Parts: sequence; C-alpha cells; structure tokens
Amino acid sequence: MSERVPSIRAEIVSVGDELLKGQRVNTNASFIARSLGSVGIPVVRVTACSDFESEMASVFREALGRADVVLVTGGLGPTRDDRTRKAAGELLGLGLRLDPDALREVERRVTAHGRTMSELMQGQAMVLDGSRAIPNTRGTAAGMIIPAGERFGGSHLVLMPGVPVEMEAMMELTVQPWLRGLSDTTIIHTPVKTTGIGESTLADMLPDIEDSLPEGTSLAYLPHGAGVDLMVSTIARDPLRAERDNAAVVEAIRERAAAFIFAVGTASLEETIIGMLASGGLTLSVAESCTGGLIASRLTDVPGSSVSLMQGFIVYSNSAKEELLGVSRGLIDTHGAVSEEVACAMALGCLRRSGTSIALATTGIAGPGGGSPEKPVGTLCLAIARQVPGSGPSVGVRTLHMHGDRLQNKHRFSEAALRDLWVALRGEQGG
Amino acid sequence: MSERVPSIRAEIVSVGDELLKGQRVNTNASFIARSLGSVGIPVVRVTACSDFESEMASVFREALGRADVVLVTGGLGPTRDDRTRKAAGELLGLGLRLDPDALREVERRVTAHGRTMSELMQGQAMVLDGSRAIPNTRGTAAGMIIPAGERFGGSHLVLMPGVPVEMEAMMELTVQPWLRGLSDTTIIHTPVKTTGIGESTLADMLPDIEDSLPEGTSLAYLPHGAGVDLMVSTIARDPLRAERDNAAVVEAIRERAAAFIFAVGTASLEETIIGMLASGGLTLSVAESCTGGLIASRLTDVPGSSVSLMQGFIVYSNSAKEELLGVSRGLIDTHGAVSEEVACAMALGCLRRSGTSIALATTGIAGPGGGSPEKPVGTLCLAIARQVPGSGPSVGVRTLHMHGDRLQNKHRFSEAALRDLWVALRGEQGG
Repeated sequence: MSERVPSIRAEIVSVGDELLKGQRVNTNASFIARSLGSVGIPVVRVTACSDFESEMASVFREALGRADVVLVTGGLGPTRDDRTRKAAGELLGLGLRLDPDALREVERRVTAHGRTMSELMQGQAMVLDGSRAIPNTRGTAAGMIIPAGERFGGSHLVLMPGVPVEMEAMMELTVQPWLRGLSDTTIIHTPVKTTGIGESTLADMLPDIEDSLPEGTSLAYLPHGAGVDLMVSTIARDPLRAERDNAAVVEAIRERAAAFIFAVGTASLEETIIGMLASGGLTLSVAESCTGGLIASRLTDVPGSSVSLMQGFIVYSNSAKEELLGVSRGLIDTHGAVSEEVACAMALGCLRRSGTSIALATTGIAGPGGGSPEKPVGTLCLAIARQVPGSGPSVGVRTLHMHGDRLQNKHRFSEAALRDLWVALRGEQGG
Repeated sequence: MSERVPSIRAEIVSVGDELLKGQRVNTNASFIARSLGSVGIPVVRVTACSDFESEMASVFREALGRADVVLVTGGLGPTRDDRTRKAAGELLGLGLRLDPDALREVERRVTAHGRTMSELMQGQAMVLDGSRAIPNTRGTAAGMIIPAGERFGGSHLVLMPGVPVEMEAMMELTVQPWLRGLSDTTIIHTPVKTTGIGESTLADMLPDIEDSLPEGTSLAYLPHGAGVDLMVSTIARDPLRAERDNAAVVEAIRERAAAFIFAVGTASLEETIIGMLASGGLTLSVAESCTGGLIASRLTDVPGSSVSLMQGFIVYSNSAKEELLGVSRGLIDTHGAVSEEVACAMALGCLRRSGTSIALATTGIAGPGGGSPEKPVGTLCLAIARQVPGSGPSVGVRTLHMHGDRLQNKHRFSEAALRDLWVALRGEQGG
C-alpha cells in the first residue's frame, strides 16, 4: 500500500434501519466504492446508520471531519419524510429551496403515472441552499452535491436516494464526472484468480513479490469457498505508471503461480472452462452422483454453454449407474459405488453413451450419512475420460477428501471437478 | 414492535480493504445483524474500515464508546494483511496467549490436509489475554470474546474471521448463546414460508390479522426470488407470553393462507418436498433442459434425498432429448424444443425410463440468447408426469414467463418447478 496520502479521500454513509436489521445487504456501498475506485478516489470508511436525525447528523459530522467527500444514500424517498435533507440542513446551517428542474421532472413522472401532484411529491424536488441538484433519471427524489463550508475544510456532502437504480444513474451521470474533476490519481485493480491452492501456501510462494511491491501497489488475498482470488491494486498520479506497475506485479505472480491461475481478470472458473471447450471445438458430458447436478448447473450458468455441454446424467442410485452408464453390478459389488473403479466406469460409460470429446464423473459421500471408516464423509472419486484420436478412450481418476458439511462438500466436490477439468483442458491445448 | 428501550446495544465492524474497494458486498454484517435481532439486541451502527492498525484502533475505540458489544469480522487470517488481533491488543493493553484448544484444532486441520505446521499457522491459535477463545469449527483462526475493561464501561469486543462460514458457525455455536445470557428480553421469530403467491395478494388476505397484532408482535413480509416468507416476531420480557402471542398469530395466518404455506419454521421448499416423497414412499426423476441440473442440485442439497431422487437427465441438446428420453425428432421439429408438447414427452419419457412414481421436466429459454417473438427469453414449459396405479401414466403441463437475466431465470424456473411438484405431492396425499 502506498505511504503517500492521496489527495482526496471519501467516506460512504448508508442510511436505513433495514441495513441495521440485516434485512438488506449493503450493495449500494459496494457500487459507490467501485465507482470511486475507477476515478482514483479511495474510500476510507463505510458507515450504516439509522434514519434518526440526531444519529445521521453525528455520522455526517464525523465523516466530514475525516474525509473530503462524504457520499450518503437513503432517506430521500417519498414515503419517509425528508429526514436526510433535514439532518444535513441542520448540521450545515442551510435552508431548503425548490429546484425548478427537479420539480419539472417530478411533475413529469407523477403525471406519466396518472397521479396528481401532492405536497409530499413536491418535497422530492427540494434541495439545500447552495447545493447543486443531481437530476434523478430513474425516479423522483433529487440528489444534491453540498459544499459543507469552512467548518469542514471545504469537504463536500453528496446526498442520493437509496433505491439502487436511481443512485447508480446519479453516480454515473453526475457524481462520477464531478469527482473526476476533483481527483488527480488513478487506481487500477487486477484480479488474479487461482484454484487448487490454499491461502497460506499461495502466500508462501510469493513472499519476495510482496516484499518488493512498487510504491502505491498492494496485494490482497480474497479466499472463498474453494479458491483464492488475488487482487493487485495500484494507485498513482501518473496513469501510465499505474498501469506499468500493476502489470509488472501481475506478471510476476503469473510466472510464479501459473499452475494455479485460471484467470487474470473477472472470469469465473466455469466461464474459463466453457471458453476453452468452445475454442477447442470440444464437447462435454457429465455423470454426477454425489454432486447431484451441481457441476452441470454451474457450467450451464454460463451463457452459450449449450454449445459445449451436450448432456448429463444424475445417477444417485446404483441401478441408475448401471442402466444409464452401463456400469456393471459386479464392479459396484466388488469395489463399492464410491471407488475409483466405479468412477472410471462412469466416466467411460458417459463418454461412450454421449459421444462427447470429454466426460466427467463424480461418485462420493457428501454426508451427513453414508460414511464408513474406510470411506468417510467427504470422500470423492473423480474421473475424467477423453477420446484420444486414433486410439481408444483414456481415463484418469483420483480420490479426494473434504471436511465440510453436506453443502460445503457438494460445493468443494464440484470445485475440485471443475479444477481437474480445467487442468485436463490445459493439457489438451498442450499448454 | 415494543416501545421499551432494550438494555443492550451492539455495533458491527467489518475489516477489510475489499469492502472499501467494493470488491465484496458486506453480507457478514447482515448475517450478524439478523443473528443479534433474534436475541433481542439492536444494531445501532455498522462500520467498514481498512485493516491499518491505527484505523482499526480508532474504529474499535469509537464503537466501544457507544455500544455494549462490538462485533468485528475480518483480519484474523494467516497472511500479512491480517492485523486485527494486534490492533485490538494495543488498544486494550492486552498481550497474546496461545490457546491450547485452538492450537489442537489448527494442528488437526493442518495435518488433515497433509501439510506441516508453520509459525504462520500457529499464529491462528493466538488469542488476547483475558479473552475467551471462540472455537472455529470451519477453519483455523480462533475468534475471541474480550472484556474491554473499565475504560469502556464493561463493553465487550468480539473478534471473528471474515470467512462467512467460519463466522456464521461461531455466531451460532458460541456468540449467540453468550449474547442471549446478556439480554433480558425474549424475541421469538417464526418464519411462515409461502410459495405461489405475491406479496400484495398475500397482504390482502391478512389485513385484520395485521390490525390486531398483540403488543410486541410484528409481521414482516420478506419477498425473495420466487416466494414470500412471512416473519412473525414477538418481543417480551416474559418468555411464556412471547411464545403464546407468537403462536396465536402464526395459527391465524396458517388458517387463512394454508394453500400457499409449505412450512412453518425454517424448512426449505426442497426439504418439504423430499420429506413428502419419503413419507409417501414415492420416487422422483427429473429431466432438465433450461435448468441445466439446478433442480436436481437443489433437491440433492437435502440430506437423505438419495432415497427418493433416483436419477436425472440433463438434456440440453435435441439429440439428448431424443436419445435419453425418447422424444421424437418429429415432435421437436413440429412444435419446437421449447413447447408444452416436448415438455410432456420429456416428462413421460423420463417416467418410463426411470421407473419412478413421478417425473418432472423443464424446457425453456434462460437467455440471454435463444429468444424469439413467440417464445421470448424467460419462457418455461414445465411438465409433471405420474404413475397412476391401475391405469397408464398421466401428465400435466404449463407455460410460464419470467423476466430476469440468465441466472435469475434459471433460479425462478427451478422455483416454479419445485412449487408445482409440491402442489402435485399435496394432491397425491389427498390434502
């Protein structure tokens, strides 16, 4: 992280009891933070508070004391009274004025919905004295950019509605362009997405890279369900330097951890796989026992996946494994349904019956029941079969052990399967 | 809702640059807020801040000055940007101790993954002096409940990891029970879960119930993807009164809206369906085109579902519909793959080939491509076929239209299918 204090710092304040009760997740704050990041303004704090005037006034005062720009969402709608406007007006000693452009827009919307104008609706066009009104292209309540005065060292308070589409349009059309004029820094974030490696093992591969990060560049670890996303962030005054420093760190990480990196950018593992299948002209079928359709469902989340994913079998029962995939009863009796032998037979059967280039099969124990000392809950046998041009089909198999509950195990099983598929496809490309 | 001011107030602090950059939405804060609400403790502020020690220390100090309990997530992991322990220790003047139980758990997990113990990993078992360690049943970093001392008037600081599953388990197993002991009010929340009815239609059925709620009892509508959950909440000092008032309102709603209520309590629609299949000795198979395995995956999320869900087919391509389900090419050519005729043929083919009591089939257009003026994106044809004892199979079908993006449509398609299946099973039971 850079030691230099950037020229502009922002805070976000989200007003609304629904956030404090956990009835709504604060997606507005994330949107605003990303929007600020793209114009080089770092967010130093996000606060959610209730819509009591005294509480709002405290939060606004504290935030304006720390930050140059405080962006507020919520409390401007027509069903609640104008508490956010009022709290801000009282804190800053500003009265209200009716904004003529905003009023015209409110009237247009009200009549377009066949309703008549009321005082409540007119209140939505009221803005604070000395502020710049932010047009609302998606709703009625006007936003405002308010100079907070000398007491707050020239900081600004920005008020916007809490309805996401209204706030998002205001950010894009008015607030972001205004902020771009205030800031003289650029921030670049590059995700580097890995699979098949834990956070601490990955960190152990990159200590010297972390120790020699260029000034203004930081490296964050974002572990989740089954993989770890790295985020390389660079802040700099010079956009070209920002780009060069960021790219150098990304490249260094890529060289070191190539075996685990499936995407530099925002692509998911599913998207990466569907893209590799499509570009290689390959088709895929899946035979799922313990994952119960989750692998197919994850792959079909990707638009256009129908070109590559031809068909799938969900074969929970032994008879389904026999009838649909031709796995022999003898094999199941000898080795058990959860065995590398049965996983291979499932993958080969799936390949043969589907006629695809590649077939993936899972058999395992997601839990909570069904485990044994030899094959505990969390055991997964995972096989991938391929058509080898000019010879017969080939198959690879391995056994893994997970340690979660049923849903975690299902998810980790599917993640392991997608990871192995990705590795197989990389081999297929000779990469 | 009760007018009485509760005795305990909480704040939530979420640590992590990824929140300030908008790379992650703060779902942890919502989870904690709901969890606190269920034990009668209101959240008065939520703050997200960076993981700089000085910034964390400021935020902790301010929050401990306002609230009785401050719950912190994030910054307890093994990498360098995990500095929460240190910031809290310096603020409160507390050293670190190695917690033997936590260390055992870290060692168990590290060796279970076939890795060797490192100093980095051992750090995850360090807790502050005078604190109570919170066991981590889903990961390695121990949490802690720390009395903040006289300076903060007996307030407590609770530190938890930022990984959602780890934090959620800690809240449920340790923190919530501890908080319940601090609060002197009882809150009862009873979910009443509906499907197949919109929020306003449901509200129109219950106006007199809403008008005559007992003091301290509230009724909230929580609409989501495809259904509406009602939440009947009662807050009271006397636990018996809370229970009685809550139960009376739940019963009144149940009488009025029975046709749409699939569960009173936390059971999901999937769990309800698997329970009905099992208790009726019925078996199910599914044939999924546009839902791509999602229905099977949702049903197999339920432990024990393998008893009832025998097999499934993912039949994206027309040839898969022909080969796996025996749908005739002529039918597809005449009516199109997305048609009630093909959905019926898929369900009947699935029933015949699987030999199950019931078969469910979906064919539709999830988008973004593949739509036409007659069959726009969001079209779903949904068929359910059943074995009728003493006669042939019967089949029912309907067409629905959704208006979301690909993932929303897939989810709504699966929800509609599960809802129709639930209605069919209720008919089967003669209910």
